[in-house]
Order: sequence, then structure tokens, then C-alpha cells
Amino acid sequence: MAYTTIDYEALKAFSLHVFEKFGYTPEESAIITSVLLTSDLYGIESHGIQRMALYYRCIQNGRIDLHAKWETVHETPLSAVIDAHACIGQLVSHYAMNRAIEKAKAHGAGFVTVRNSNHFGIAGYYAKMAVEKGLIGMATTNSVPIMVPTYASTAMLGSNPLAFAAPAEPYDFFFDASTTVVTRGKVEVYTKKNEPLPEGWTVDEKGLPGHDAGYILNNINQRLGGGILPLGGATEQLGGHKGYGYGMVSELFSSILSLGLTSNHIDGISPGGICHGFIAIDPHLFGDPDAIKAHFSAFLQELRQSPKAEGQSRIYTHGEKEVEATARIRKEGVPVNEKTIEEMRQICQDLNIDMTSFLGEITF
Amino acid sequence: MAYTTIDYEALKAFSLHVFEKFGYTPEESAIITSVLLTSDLYGIESHGIQRMALYYRCIQNGRIDLHAKWETVHETPLSAVIDAHACIGQLVSHYAMNRAIEKAKAHGAGFVTVRNSNHFGIAGYYAKMAVEKGLIGMATTNSVPIMVPTYASTAMLGSNPLAFAAPAEPYDFFFDASTTVVTRGKVEVYTKKNEPLPEGWTVDEKGLPGHDAGYILNNINQRLGGGILPLGGATEQLGGHKGYGYGMVSELFSSILSLGLTSNHIDGISPGGICHGFIAIDPHLFGDPDAIKAHFSAFLQELRQSPKAEGQSRIYTHGEKEVEATARIRKEGVPVNEKTIEEMRQICQDLNIDMTSFLGEITF
Repeated sequence: MAYTTIDYEALKAFSLHVFEKFGYTPEESAIITSVLLTSDLYGIESHGIQRMALYYRCIQNGRIDLHAKWETVHETPLSAVIDAHACIGQLVSHYAMNRAIEKAKAHGAGFVTVRNSNHFGIAGYYAKMAVEKGLIGMATTNSVPIMVPTYASTAMLGSNPLAFAAPAEPYDFFFDASTTVVTRGKVEVYTKKNEPLPEGWTVDEKGLPGHDAGYILNNINQRLGGGILPLGGATEQLGGHKGYGYGMVSELFSSILSLGLTSNHIDGISPGGICHGFIAIDPHLFGDPDAIKAHFSAFLQELRQSPKAEGQSRIYTHGEKEVEATARIRKEGVPVNEKTIEEMRQICQDLNIDMTSFLGEITF
Repeated sequence: MAYTTIDYEALKAFSLHVFEKFGYTPEESAIITSVLLTSDLYGIESHGIQRMALYYRCIQNGRIDLHAKWETVHETPLSAVIDAHACIGQLVSHYAMNRAIEKAKAHGAGFVTVRNSNHFGIAGYYAKMAVEKGLIGMATTNSVPIMVPTYASTAMLGSNPLAFAAPAEPYDFFFDASTTVVTRGKVEVYTKKNEPLPEGWTVDEKGLPGHDAGYILNNINQRLGGGILPLGGATEQLGGHKGYGYGMVSELFSSILSLGLTSNHIDGISPGGICHGFIAIDPHLFGDPDAIKAHFSAFLQELRQSPKAEGQSRIYTHGEKEVEATARIRKEGVPVNEKTIEEMRQICQDLNIDMTSFLGEITF
């Protein structure tokens, strides 16, 4: 698939305008745009600006209720449970993590769960919000069912990312990963390349190893059985029950503690349904935040400087790749594929937006 | 290796007596015994009664200070940081999780970290303590370095288990797993069987795939380089960077937030050094605990009843195997291998304990 690169600031101005045209206020549009473009800056194309078209469709078909106002249905000094009433995931999640941060600043820790929401973008965005306030952040979400539990043949859990972030120098610790071995996006890439899937990624509707990317992807999308394996693969030999366990931890802190829908009940058609969980922890709970940050930074440095495997030149700590991708993409532009450009053109046609005035003439 | 089975109550009485002979009070001995035998009941031989000899050696060589009193070095309503002063891991950890539970009962959540401790047994024991009080529990520990980070050739993190437990019917949710693909115990089993290690478990001192179990085990024990891979294996293809990330989360909540030694600085010779983390969360933070428990129980039931992979008859939820193993082992006896029996005999000789009066004549 052909790619173009678009200047980051131009893409941002375009996104701000488009989401306003969808019906969001400038403040709301700024939050949604920030979540999407942070993903692009981190090099995670699947959760970036290419989702704009999905959100547009979801607003049109009612899965996202543009006018919904979320509601806090339970609250304590340390916690809140929010019913999103099917609003867009980014807005309620930004609000929810800010509430968790306020509670952590006031009392040491904050726990906010959200039910009946939509896609919220990358989990790490919200974990990072806490770090920017000097806190430790955690964020998770469930999703439509993707993950096939160990020894099962049907997807019952979502991609269920767990994200953790904590202050460190010169890079904050930032770890955001699906609890499946890979995301659906990776299977899509293999479908486009028409290459067989690696062993240990997926199973078919019989729960047997899946290698035909297009077949598996269709199975997932049409809910015909099978799906993506948990981190650790199909059996206990490489720890598949562990990835399944982390997926369960994600459900616990999203759908279970919000009394929302577990992933197996999210149909991808009805409005809302997705659940999130957000935690902020003040390092003051454990002493001097600067000493803790320095201690963590020293360990991260020792990891990066430790002996490399033969043939490897570098050991990464979590968060480094995102910092480097951000610097590169801010300078070189955001890579956007031709399908996304075509979808953006269609949206602009529908909404009478002059795309060229924002992005110039796009060539591949 | 030959095994015998020993009646659970007889083994418990024996262990209580031995730890008292080591110098612990009856109350202390009961806690240590409870942690060890819970592991045996769960079918995790590596962390059970076979550790008795290790603790005896550690007391003799000073890694465990029998007379040490731990000290709370930082405290807030929600949290505490404890310096164990090299006492036995089980006692300070039992105390620490009880403090976390008290704090959660009083304020909604409790976070206690411990530094300068010793092996604490299975992480899940402490997570389970919270569940027995109706709370959600988490426990983690670091250890001597075992885990080789992605693209590295030297072990820098421990086995770093993360354990989570939450109330559910008919079995509590109980997930306790190392963040390495397997534990050192599994490599020991392959050494004894003289079988090659599966691909994706270990690397040698060059960071290249390791298949010779004895060689790798010696490398780990002598710190000659290499070690066990993170969950997800050697590269990013199967998500090794994710297992490495979970290992980092364990360090964060153990060594970093206690300002203790990170795994790469634990030499396995000096007293203490190991760090733990304990969290308890009251489900009242999120509404009616009974409704949350019922919601979780329903999801766990749906998982168990979902369609099975071809050739599989059962899907487990986390905690089921431990409940079933407990029932079986309480009835049939605790399997103990001949090496452990020999070590127990040696201890009894040293301490003038009549082992036969507790365990009868042992035959294989």
C-alpha cells in the first residue's frame, strides 16, 4: 500500500476542523485529535488518524452518540464509576483519567472505571496523562472479542491492552501492549501482504493453528470462530495461560469493576458497550518522588547499557521507541496510507471541507 | 526422581515443629508453614516444603536473619514502605499484606512495599489473603536475576511474578505467574530428564537460543550470562517485549517503589535484598461487592462453558486448577521427592528432631 507523509501540524489542524464539523466543540475536538495524533507520533498507525473514518461511520450509525453526556453512577473519595452513555471513548476517558489524577493528588490514589463507552484510542495516552502530573498511571480497556482463551475455539476477550507509565529520566517508563500476542492490525498487514501468519498468532474456528491471514481476519470480523491467541500462544508450553490471565486482569479493571459488558457481550453493532479502567497513584505514597524517579532512571539506564545479544546493537527500555518516533515524525511528517487519504477525501466531500486548504496537494 | 506422598496434616505438624526448632515462635512458624504448604496444595512443588532446606541454609549462612525485626520506614493512610532487615520473606510479607488489607478496609485501597527481604514463597498466597477479606489482591516480588531482556544476553530482572486475585463463585479468580516464559524450576526438570529445552525458553551467554538444560541452568546459577526469556520469547514477533514489560511492572511495584535493590543488584549471597509489593483494593470503591462478584462469576462461567478447541475437553479459568489440586492433595497426600526427604532427614539429624514420629516410616 502506498504511503504519503503529511506535516504533523497540518494534520492536526485538519483533524481539529473535521471533528468540529462532526459536531464536537473546539475543546472536545482538541482532545480527540490529541489522542489520535499521539498514536501516529508513537508510530502506531492503526490507532491514529486512520481511525477518523471509523469514528465518522460510528457517529452515523449510532454506535457513538455524538450528543451523549456521561454520568457518574458511583463515587467515593478514591474512586468513580462512569456510564458513558455511548459517547466517544476519548472524551469520557480523558475526563475519567483526570478524575483519577485529581483523586490521587488529593488522597494518594484514584480508580475510575467506565462502562458503555466506545474505542478510546491507545491506552497509553491515559497512563501518560498521569505521568505528566508526576503520578504513576495505568489504563486498560476491553473491546469486541478477539482473544481466544487457552484451549478454546471462540474469541471471548478483547485485545485488552494494559498500559503502565511512570516518571523517569531521560524517558518516562511507558509500556502499552495488547494482552493478545499481536493486535488485529498485524493480521491485517499479513492479509494485505498475502503472507502466511507466523505460528502461534491465531487459531481458526476449530481452535487449530491459523496461517491464512485473510481467512482468519474474515473469521474474526464475521464472528465465525477462532481469533488471536493470548500472549504466550496456544498452549501452556510458552505461557498462553499467562497472556489469557493478563487479559482477565484487563476485564477485571474495565468491565467487571464497572458492571459493564464483558468483551464476549460486545457485539460491535449496538451503541457503546466498551469498558475502560484508569488508575493514578501518587509516588508520595512511597516517599520522595524525586528519589523514586532517580532510582527508576538508574535501573532503566543499566538495562540499556547491559550486554547485547549477538547480532543486536541495542536494548530498549519501554517508552524509548515512542520518544524517538515522535521526534522523527514531527520532523519528517506523519505517514498516511492511500486508503486513509481516500476515506478522508470522502468525509471532506460529505461535510464540505476543503481538504487541500489544510493538507495541500497529496501525492504518493 | 522417586516420590512419596505424605499426609497433609502430618507434614504440617512436622513443618510447624521444624520452624520452631529453627527459632521461630509457634505463631511465626504457623505463617511460614501456611505459605509453604499452600504452594504444595496448589501443586507447585518448587515453592513448597522442598524450600525448607533452602531456608535452613539461608538462616545458617546469614542471608535470612532469624532475629531481624522489620521496620516501617514510610507510612501514609493508604500506604507503607517496610525495610525487612533481611528477615524471612514470609513473615514480613504476611504482615505487609495485612497492613495493605487494613488500609483498604479503612480507606478503600492499601499499597505496601517491602525492601531488603528474602524469598516470600508464592506471590499468590498474599493476593489470596486479600480475597479472603472480600478484597481484590495483588502481590509481586523481584528476585535474583533470571530474565534476559529483549535483545540482551545477561539476566537483569528476576522471575518477577505478578499475582492477582478477586472474589468469585464457585472459585475465586486467582492468577499467579512469573513474567518469564517459564520458571527456573522448569529448566531444572529438563535437566533432570536430560531433555533439550523447547525453543523460546532460554538464551545462552551470547543471547542465542539455549537448548541444553544443564548448561543453561549452570549459567544461571553461576551467573555466567544468559537466562530465561520473558513471556513472549526472544524477539518481538511473539511479544517478548511484553513479557519484559510485565517484568518491569513487577520491579516498579517492588524494588522501585520501596527504593530497594533491583533484581540485577541482588547477588543471592548477601543478606536480604529482595523486594516485594502488595496492593489491596476494596470493591466497595466501585459499588456493591456482591453485584461485582456475581458479574465476575457469570463471566468466568461463560468462559468455562465456551466452545473448546478440537481435541480439548476443558477450558480453565484462573484459580480452578489450584482448587482442584488442593482437594486432591488433601485427600491423597503431598507428593515429596526423595531429595527433599533426604534434606529433611539431614535437618532432623542436625536439630535432634524425630522425623518418624511426625511422618512415620517413609518408603518410595
